[in-house]
Amino acid sequence: MATLFETHRKLLDDALAATRLRTYWSAFPELPSGRIYGETAKADGAAAYDAYLAKSFPLPDHPGDDEAGGEVSPYGRALGIRYPSAAPAALIDAAKAAMPAWAETAPETRVGVCLEALKRLNVRSFEMANAVMQTTGQGFAMAFQAGGPNAQDRGLEAVAYAWEAMARTPAAATWTKPTGKDTAITVEKRWRIVPRGIGLVIGCNTFPTWNSYAGLFASLATGNPVIVKPHPSAVLPLAITVQVIRAVVADEGFDPNIVMLAAEEPGGELAKAFVGHPDVALIDYTGSSAFGAWVRANAGGAQVFSEEAGVNPVVIAGTDSFRGMCANLAFSLSLYSGQMCTAPQPIYVPRDGIDTDQGRKSFDDVAAGIATAIDKLLSDPARAAAICGAIAADATLKRVEDAPSLGRVVRSSGPIEVMDDARTATPLLLAIDAKTSDAHTVEQFGPISFVVAVDDADDGLGHAVAGVRQQGAITAAVYATDPIFLDAAEEAFAAVGANLSCNLIGDLYVNQSAAFSDYHATGANPAANSCFTDLAFVANRFRVAAARRLAA
Amino acid sequence: MATLFETHRKLLDDALAATRLRTYWSAFPELPSGRIYGETAKADGAAAYDAYLAKSFPLPDHPGDDEAGGEVSPYGRALGIRYPSAAPAALIDAAKAAMPAWAETAPETRVGVCLEALKRLNVRSFEMANAVMQTTGQGFAMAFQAGGPNAQDRGLEAVAYAWEAMARTPAAATWTKPTGKDTAITVEKRWRIVPRGIGLVIGCNTFPTWNSYAGLFASLATGNPVIVKPHPSAVLPLAITVQVIRAVVADEGFDPNIVMLAAEEPGGELAKAFVGHPDVALIDYTGSSAFGAWVRANAGGAQVFSEEAGVNPVVIAGTDSFRGMCANLAFSLSLYSGQMCTAPQPIYVPRDGIDTDQGRKSFDDVAAGIATAIDKLLSDPARAAAICGAIAADATLKRVEDAPSLGRVVRSSGPIEVMDDARTATPLLLAIDAKTSDAHTVEQFGPISFVVAVDDADDGLGHAVAGVRQQGAITAAVYATDPIFLDAAEEAFAAVGANLSCNLIGDLYVNQSAAFSDYHATGANPAANSCFTDLAFVANRFRVAAARRLAA
Repeated sequence: MATLFETHRKLLDDALAATRLRTYWSAFPELPSGRIYGETAKADGAAAYDAYLAKSFPLPDHPGDDEAGGEVSPYGRALGIRYPSAAPAALIDAAKAAMPAWAETAPETRVGVCLEALKRLNVRSFEMANAVMQTTGQGFAMAFQAGGPNAQDRGLEAVAYAWEAMARTPAAATWTKPTGKDTAITVEKRWRIVPRGIGLVIGCNTFPTWNSYAGLFASLATGNPVIVKPHPSAVLPLAITVQVIRAVVADEGFDPNIVMLAAEEPGGELAKAFVGHPDVALIDYTGSSAFGAWVRANAGGAQVFSEEAGVNPVVIAGTDSFRGMCANLAFSLSLYSGQMCTAPQPIYVPRDGIDTDQGRKSFDDVAAGIATAIDKLLSDPARAAAICGAIAADATLKRVEDAPSLGRVVRSSGPIEVMDDARTATPLLLAIDAKTSDAHTVEQFGPISFVVAVDDADDGLGHAVAGVRQQGAITAAVYATDPIFLDAAEEAFAAVGANLSCNLIGDLYVNQSAAFSDYHATGANPAANSCFTDLAFVANRFRVAAARRLAA
Repeated sequence: MATLFETHRKLLDDALAATRLRTYWSAFPELPSGRIYGETAKADGAAAYDAYLAKSFPLPDHPGDDEAGGEVSPYGRALGIRYPSAAPAALIDAAKAAMPAWAETAPETRVGVCLEALKRLNVRSFEMANAVMQTTGQGFAMAFQAGGPNAQDRGLEAVAYAWEAMARTPAAATWTKPTGKDTAITVEKRWRIVPRGIGLVIGCNTFPTWNSYAGLFASLATGNPVIVKPHPSAVLPLAITVQVIRAVVADEGFDPNIVMLAAEEPGGELAKAFVGHPDVALIDYTGSSAFGAWVRANAGGAQVFSEEAGVNPVVIAGTDSFRGMCANLAFSLSLYSGQMCTAPQPIYVPRDGIDTDQGRKSFDDVAAGIATAIDKLLSDPARAAAICGAIAADATLKRVEDAPSLGRVVRSSGPIEVMDDARTATPLLLAIDAKTSDAHTVEQFGPISFVVAVDDADDGLGHAVAGVRQQGAITAAVYATDPIFLDAAEEAFAAVGANLSCNLIGDLYVNQSAAFSDYHATGANPAANSCFTDLAFVANRFRVAAARRLAA
């Protein structure tokens, strides 16, 4: 019978080839279509989700002497799901007990398990879409894509890199060093992959799977057991993930405690029990900069891979598609109500306006153009609900309520009509002047953005780059018709480690980052200390130990 | 005219292929032979060294408003060389000024510069041998090999890995995502290597070049300017290195301050001015565990690659070559008077002896066998001087003087006759019992080792593995005839991340680590947090930033 590695070898090879070419490629179709996923997949996924509600979540053989949980959907409903809960020391002990066999098995075996788990997760993409939608507030389409196939692609990408990094060292070699005309020393050498220790994955509220899969699968593939600590408001997507992986692990004869869930009640601080623990060697963190700084400062000897907050700038120098630019920005600001780590916040516009295909546009024209495009995009409440989704956290809604005082309101935020039980807020757009305000330089997480008056395009670029250096950014965007300015922007943003999108119109948005082609974040500015996914993201998750024996 | 990259392309490709095969390969011949290096190379190298003495060291255009220096050779003579000295802030500023052009140039350019520098360093291997010998106390043969060609090989290895990691991302790609039956989004993407910041290399007294070249060249190749902070007792080898690299950098039109020397008077704490500085992003450190712990704790956001102290164990379970084993261990203990980070310290021997090709040998027989082999190896004073060299630090000599009280003296240490002006000490061998002493578990840097009585081979393995876990180890060795025990030892040492050598006799020693095949250290135990060289050693020295433009 073929091993899982053999079964999925082509998938792995294709993924690796894609990361080298970086042209378009995807393993897991992002279209929520019955023709791809099966005609009953949508209904089956919804039913599977419903079946979890108000029950104990099934994680066979998972450590736990209690239960925890308390998710309330941003769409209104309390999920009532209870997850197994164990003392942190019990999870650490279980991980240590499971570790040796996982560490000692061949990399091929671990990679095969990871690939099989991703395939099984893909089959459950509709179920996952419901889980992600209801815990994060994303619209269904985004919850399906980002929570399912796109997250699976990021997981696969990480497995592919991990495999490349591990497979780079041969399992064995015969080393023969000439020591004279007819003499030599011959040594038989063998190398083993040595994992670092326990991996800790700290998930976020908004993208529980997409932001966790790269670290989770990279740590697993390289031999480290992983404790998954979800955000207490978004446990279910990672509980399903852990369930799927544990099943594959057990099927292959390993202790399922290779992967465990560390669930907690809302408001808990369970992560602090694991960060700095001497057995925790790897930490993948997505979340606020404040807690991220605490994690980095208290990680001890653990390697931390963190994605924290950024302030993603847009610089508008000019455009040959004013309508396209405004529509594109409107979508970027509206999508998931600005709760993406890749959403823009300050939009720098020259104080005396820009040249466009519609002639000269004043600063106010540009601000109004974006506001109008948002209004148009969200004019149908059903579509507004699908695009904006709901607001994940109360604090975000509060922030939107308080924000108008930060500038001149160009577009007010408001609730979305059809979503009575949900927390909703459409984009708030404020105008300010960089000469008199720096409100735009502080992260305002959620649907809050600023059109910022600057002296000219170069001044806007200067502000944007300074902001990236100071606060970090995961994305940056520029609109300009002058190729010299575009080149200068490319250099300037590269120097501060921000990924730049130029002149986007139509259906590609600055928010989007495609596995196998786009690195998500760079690790070169304060928004993140690593990226999805490069060699640096995987190579530090294991070491290599050698044994050499003098040949007879 | 061919670029440096084109000129040295085959060298790079051969090096990369070697790191994948890990069979024997070397770029730089380690034989100090006139037929390889030129008939006058030996005399020229000695003359070049002599010409530095009692003068200001020539580093054209190097920052410095003062001079520093104070090297005194372990062989007796004060070198009297003065190096340029500048305030740390001046070096940081100069590095920042030099950085942008180095960061923005193509990886090929930087790699070409590094390869050319290594080739030029190779030509000066005899000069380097004198510099290393006189500053470290190594014998000439070792100073030539380890200080010259073997260090150059380690540098080349790091450049090769850096190139592989950088070249993995294409410079550009066209990304076309189908969006419908006849529609697609096409984006032109470009990627740039973004260096991390300033690299700091903190050299050690005993292997100033061998332990520094991997980090130095890895940081340079990936775009980071480097400040080299030598041990104040071993400045000259790194000053020559900096001089050579600066010349190549300047020849290629870059600011030579891409590489600078941070020299100081003996007893200075100059490293502390750089560790934790916000512009220092990478730190390569070799030295004591005490200062290493300080570096790691105070590095701020910098990535630290450190090699600190270990306690390298030997476990003797049995041998089919008692004479060969004793001779091999005698050499390992004598070479450079045990001042190698790879030299063994505790030698675990069953309390009731072992089986050998010479029949049963008691614990005392084994201890005496090793002691006798040392006596024989060092019986000729000239050969003893060549093998043992001199003692680099006063503190080491003092430690040898104090150590006899730690156990029963099996072999006394003593000076080497022919080296009147030098600090010398032959190996001290002590016998202890693991039941009543743990003196062997603490690093005793220098020619101090212990034959440690244990219950049996398994008990010895247990002690050895526990020691590695606790104190760290860069090497481990086992002598055994039982294949099951050998396999168990392989697994046990791999689990604690120690590189193991089995049954070495003849001219291969546990101390030796060959570039392109042996990883030096693993990074998986307290002796080091990284190794020479794997992908983890290079991949974190740069990031990648992207720019994407919607195709017209």
